[in-house]
Amino acid sequence: MSDSGEQPRLLIIDTDPGVDDAMAILMAANSPEVQLLGITTVYGNVPTALATQNALRLLEMAGLCGGVMVAQGAARSLKAGTDVERIADFVHGADGFGDVGLPPPRGSHAADVSAAEFLVRSVNAHPGRVTILALAPLTNIAQALMLDPDLGDKWAELVILGGAFFTGGNVNPAAEANIFGDPDAADLVLGCTPRLRVLGLDVTQRCRMTAEELQAMRGVGKYGSFVYDISQFYLNFHRKWYDMDALYLHDPTAMAAVLRPDLFEWRAGAVRVACEGVTKGQTVMDASVRGFHGHNGWADRPQVQVALGVQQQQVVQLIRERLTAT
Amino acid sequence: MSDSGEQPRLLIIDTDPGVDDAMAILMAANSPEVQLLGITTVYGNVPTALATQNALRLLEMAGLCGGVMVAQGAARSLKAGTDVERIADFVHGADGFGDVGLPPPRGSHAADVSAAEFLVRSVNAHPGRVTILALAPLTNIAQALMLDPDLGDKWAELVILGGAFFTGGNVNPAAEANIFGDPDAADLVLGCTPRLRVLGLDVTQRCRMTAEELQAMRGVGKYGSFVYDISQFYLNFHRKWYDMDALYLHDPTAMAAVLRPDLFEWRAGAVRVACEGVTKGQTVMDASVRGFHGHNGWADRPQVQVALGVQQQQVVQLIRERLTAT
Repeated sequence: MSDSGEQPRLLIIDTDPGVDDAMAILMAANSPEVQLLGITTVYGNVPTALATQNALRLLEMAGLCGGVMVAQGAARSLKAGTDVERIADFVHGADGFGDVGLPPPRGSHAADVSAAEFLVRSVNAHPGRVTILALAPLTNIAQALMLDPDLGDKWAELVILGGAFFTGGNVNPAAEANIFGDPDAADLVLGCTPRLRVLGLDVTQRCRMTAEELQAMRGVGKYGSFVYDISQFYLNFHRKWYDMDALYLHDPTAMAAVLRPDLFEWRAGAVRVACEGVTKGQTVMDASVRGFHGHNGWADRPQVQVALGVQQQQVVQLIRERLTAT
Repeated sequence: MSDSGEQPRLLIIDTDPGVDDAMAILMAANSPEVQLLGITTVYGNVPTALATQNALRLLEMAGLCGGVMVAQGAARSLKAGTDVERIADFVHGADGFGDVGLPPPRGSHAADVSAAEFLVRSVNAHPGRVTILALAPLTNIAQALMLDPDLGDKWAELVILGGAFFTGGNVNPAAEANIFGDPDAADLVLGCTPRLRVLGLDVTQRCRMTAEELQAMRGVGKYGSFVYDISQFYLNFHRKWYDMDALYLHDPTAMAAVLRPDLFEWRAGAVRVACEGVTKGQTVMDASVRGFHGHNGWADRPQVQVALGVQQQQVVQLIRERLTAT
């Protein structure tokens, strides 16, 4: 296989579907710029086994179940020990899709390979061509890097949805949910290569869809009604906790960053993650002009691209277009 | 003694002088709104013993050595063990005053009481009347709270210079120097009472004096030339690390917040400090609208006032006026 740039961009989505994960996956299915190679699953919005079922359901729905692999990943964070992971069922519903009573997948099933192994094989099979979009805790990506420490030099790009850099968190004042889910994995992954972009609450909380806009999607295109239905529970969470009649488009905004990175303002800098104590899961980037006197924990780390600005209207428009295309 | 509001505000400054500490102390000496009761000293910009010498020098210079006590405080942070504290001599010079060769104090000396004990005695002697301005690591204040856990209900207000809430740190990308100096003390103090204000780099880095403005102070009023002389080393640090021909007015901005809190935009919220790991010393405030699902480490803490905005021109003007008054 050639590495020619004319071939389509290959995409793997690492995810815990999840209402907004479903939006991102359906966007990918409706985006000719990318060819979806596979979905790897992990805990977060739902437990890992359910994430796998939900990924299969979505692929069947999008008519992609033949060509796209689903590989199940870690059920626990790197240092979970015997702890049970925090599952955001209060955001996405117990089934991850707003408890609207969807049937189980009709017949497709996950591949007989772990998420980490699938990531390593895929990236090595297509060096320089695979983009990974990580929408969940970064355990699978960290495990893939343990299997192949050079993986970060071989993927085209890793796009991470996670973190809160110069704004508050959403699990607590310090931490964003994906990074909080496995801070140790995140600190490892964010230090592995400069070939990665990370976008967090600084930009995703500026990309919102109002209840009215959501209503207008109903019955439109392939996925409009499905998205409307599964989003009501998620919308109610936003009404209750954020005092707004709208929802944050976290995961589809990250998919928009895969398709249109030019719609974001990226700043290069090293990133560390707090792995202990009350602020565990907080992401901190070095945005200094000339660094600092003396050594610090950021100094020897790769400069990654952090999204600090976004053209939100164009991003939301792109998301709406892709979700309602026919 | 009566608690009448007509009596002058009593002030104790906890400090590690330090160039900008000197500015704050001289401002206090030139401010009729406050009566300086005492100075308590601690490590930070200089070691504690030198901080004491510098406080005495400043009081002699301001003609206040008779009426104002100096009480020496902790030489080490709460959990320092045998570690030596980080001293910012690269910012302030080895003598804390820009290495301009000032003579030692002429005869005054520190009181025979610890900083913590002095704070407890003073606040209890004048309940509800003493404002404490803390310009350094918070070890002395924490020790005072260990001696008298109700102290936070008895001071008029504690104004803390420290932290970086929605901006980067100055010791490293996470931590501001004063909080970094004793994160455990800071986490204790910031959780003791709602009667405190904290202002950090979010506002103090917006209050600058240019080299030209500094030059214009030379020979003006009581302290203009002294401030000009000791500030050159500090100015050069700013030129080197921040790529600007100006200096940050951290400590005098905090003194301005004592005199004119109305020039700042305060937001109420609980604050925690990271006490472990790579982000140790980072301050995180809960600025959420309705809190978070589930318990978190901020939930049971007092709401303190955090400065997130400032009318910087008016603050800088106030600082200049007080430093050059005759």
